Amino acid sequence: MPTSRIEAFSDGVFAIVITLLVLEIHVPQVQGKDVAAALARSLLAMTPKFLTYILSFVLVCIWWVAHHHLFHVLRRSDRGLLWLNSLFLLWLAFLPFPTALMGDFPGERIAVMGYGTVSTLAGVSFTLMRFYAFYLAKLVDESIDRSLLNSAMLKSALNPVLHSIAVLLAFVDTRLSIALYIILPMMFFIPSKLERYVHSGQTGSPS
Amino acid sequence: MPTSRIEAFSDGVFAIVITLLVLEIHVPQVQGKDVAAALARSLLAMTPKFLTYILSFVLVCIWWVAHHHLFHVLRRSDRGLLWLNSLFLLWLAFLPFPTALMGDFPGERIAVMGYGTVSTLAGVSFTLMRFYAFYLAKLVDESIDRSLLNSAMLKSALNPVLHSIAVLLAFVDTRLSIALYIILPMMFFIPSKLERYVHSGQTGSPS
Amino acid sequence: MPTSRIEAFSDGVFAIVITLLVLEIHVPQVQGKDVAAALARSLLAMTPKFLTYILSFVLVCIWWVAHHHLFHVLRRSDRGLLWLNSLFLLWLAFLPFPTALMGDFPGERIAVMGYGTVSTLAGVSFTLMRFYAFYLAKLVDESIDRSLLNSAMLKSALNPVLHSIAVLLAFVDTRLSIALYIILPMMFFIPSKLERYVHSGQTGSPS
Amino acid sequence: MPTSRIEAFSDGVFAIVITLLVLEIHVPQVQGKDVAAALARSLLAMTPKFLTYILSFVLVCIWWVAHHHLFHVLRRSDRGLLWLNSLFLLWLAFLPFPTALMGDFPGERIAVMGYGTVSTLAGVSFTLMRFYAFYLAKLVDESIDRSLLNSAMLKSALNPVLHSIAVLLAFVDTRLSIALYIILPMMFFIPSKLERYVHSGQTGSPS
Repeated sequence: MPTSRIEAFSDGVFAIVITLLVLEIHVPQVQGKDVAAALARSLLAMTPKFLTYILSFVLVCIWWVAHHHLFHVLRRSDRGLLWLNSLFLLWLAFLPFPTALMGDFPGERIAVMGYGTVSTLAGVSFTLMRFYAFYLAKLVDESIDRSLLNSAMLKSALNPVLHSIAVLLAFVDTRLSIALYIILPMMFFIPSKLERYVHSGQTGSPS
Repeated sequence: MPTSRIEAFSDGVFAIVITLLVLEIHVPQVQGKDVAAALARSLLAMTPKFLTYILSFVLVCIWWVAHHHLFHVLRRSDRGLLWLNSLFLLWLAFLPFPTALMGDFPGERIAVMGYGTVSTLAGVSFTLMRFYAFYLAKLVDESIDRSLLNSAMLKSALNPVLHSIAVLLAFVDTRLSIALYIILPMMFFIPSKLERYVHSGQTGSPS
Repeated sequence: MPTSRIEAFSDGVFAIVITLLVLEIHVPQVQGKDVAAALARSLLAMTPKFLTYILSFVLVCIWWVAHHHLFHVLRRSDRGLLWLNSLFLLWLAFLPFPTALMGDFPGERIAVMGYGTVSTLAGVSFTLMRFYAFYLAKLVDESIDRSLLNSAMLKSALNPVLHSIAVLLAFVDTRLSIALYIILPMMFFIPSKLERYVHSGQTGSPS
Repeated sequence: MPTSRIEAFSDGVFAIVITLLVLEIHVPQVQGKDVAAALARSLLAMTPKFLTYILSFVLVCIWWVAHHHLFHVLRRSDRGLLWLNSLFLLWLAFLPFPTALMGDFPGERIAVMGYGTVSTLAGVSFTLMRFYAFYLAKLVDESIDRSLLNSAMLKSALNPVLHSIAVLLAFVDTRLSIALYIILPMMFFIPSKLERYVHSGQTGSPS
């Protein structure tokens, strides 16, 4: 079974999740004499919602890029990959809820930890899928250097580990967790060796 | 008419339904002095909603896989297939409503039976579509062994039969129905002979 | 410019609209002592919403099929077609609102007329697009018989004419309008000569 | 890396945003003795919401066309383009919120300025992406005349400049801003030289 269908389906879910995030931001209902001032105050109070929206948007974009890089090196798919991918999509599609929750209760430990837990679980599923494809089911393009796969694997595994630490830091201070939620994705802007290899267009004919 | 367009359209509906399910889970509105405790209580009370979300997510994934396996063995499509597929999509696209209903009223017979009825009707439509494609309109790849088609047909037909039994069990106890709703999809994780045949990549040249 | 992009974009809008319709059906909020009876009553009272959902679902499916048949006979697209298609999509994407409106107020003249007006305007836009493609911009495959195009054109034009009559009948009785809204789509289940020609797979080599 | 994936993903976001806009238009809740009159009044009062919906719909369509014209002249993509495109999609996907805000508060300066600010930021991101692709990363088809690129670049840059002027005019009168929001998109109906060049189908073999 070719990977193109799983990719197309996942791309659809990515595009929909990224666009649905905004639906959790509702227009404030303002009444009273001074509507202008009340509306301005309400919008200002919604700042955490706007920032959480941006954070989740960036997170989904990073996962989208990572997902493409993973599937770019796969030769074929099987049932195991399909279900591990579905598990990853389960957490991805669930993201709008913790996003809205943390946006509404940015100071509440349970909301901050909930957000991080969902993104940790998405990271764990993604790592499992990569591990399965790279080492268990051997779905990967054989021409690709093992060391490139290993370093990509390590980077994938590091993500949920660091996210779970961010979650636990909420017991100290929720602002520490949020700071890490913002810093961690930046780490993934730096392309890994495998990504640079894929981008160099050498798939199939490595030197 | 090739089947690719119906597939692409259906894939779009699958991806959207799976992602819309989360929109029925709303952030709890919490007031009063102890926000932290009230929020924790509200989230805990939402457990049935989370579980129903996961159940429907798995259901849609299973149907997505089954839909692909069906269309993988079809040579062409016609108007009949198109409208039977639309009937199936009608129930699929409707799923977010009974999901939210059972999530909100997990102990109410009408909610539990409503959920099972919609998934039964989706199963009936899917079975009709398969029957039409396999036996009435003969849209299937001729090289495929009849016995493989028959066993896939049987499995398809078994699904709504078992689901309707689960619905009726709600007259005894709604928890029995819910238990069956959870167990039945697992049955479909086990690939049928036709699916294994399709996965073995032999379509078009059976031994 | 090839037509494939407009088709893919329109298909996306079709799939999303058909799936969004369900979001306007909300789980009833039920309180009091006898939840079971109250919930059953609430769901029964929602029957017009369920029926309007099915009606709009069928409408979107019919337009989807008609859209494909139109684009199947086009050789190329231009800016005019692109904007007329966007005008059609404007009314299509708006459909969830009048659907919810008529579902909530099935006995109110303004709701019933609003629903029919939006579907009339979608029909007018579709007819304009077909007229533009067939006669003004001559985007159609030249091998196709003129009489086939003319009969498809006539059928397209008949649709908004009959729908606007259905809208006006609301001044007599809203139930008359609704009856016509249900009957009219059935007319379009009967394939036109052009559709049968397209399905016979002879595009490009007519006898 | 080919551009097809970024295009498909962006197309998905475009199609979803355009269809989600309607979700912010809610059916009015009407009570009292004269439902018919109250419903008519409520719907009439929603006119700004309907008009803002149409405005945003047109805006998204124009951006969709511009996005296609940009990617049509690109030979390849890179990480920079991918992230600048994501930045553009961030503002695009956010559009339903300011649309709903201005629809609910068409006379409030903060709502009118908010709407224009988001469309300005989308325009700035789009201009940045074009600048990056044309001049910095040189991703463009080399056969295309430099002067065509320059004029397309100028038109792209003009858009956010004019939109930010429209935003600032809200300090004089919000109706002036809204008038400009409506007039500005019309300017972009007139195809630029590059667009006409692309439509003439000469990409790859310029005279």
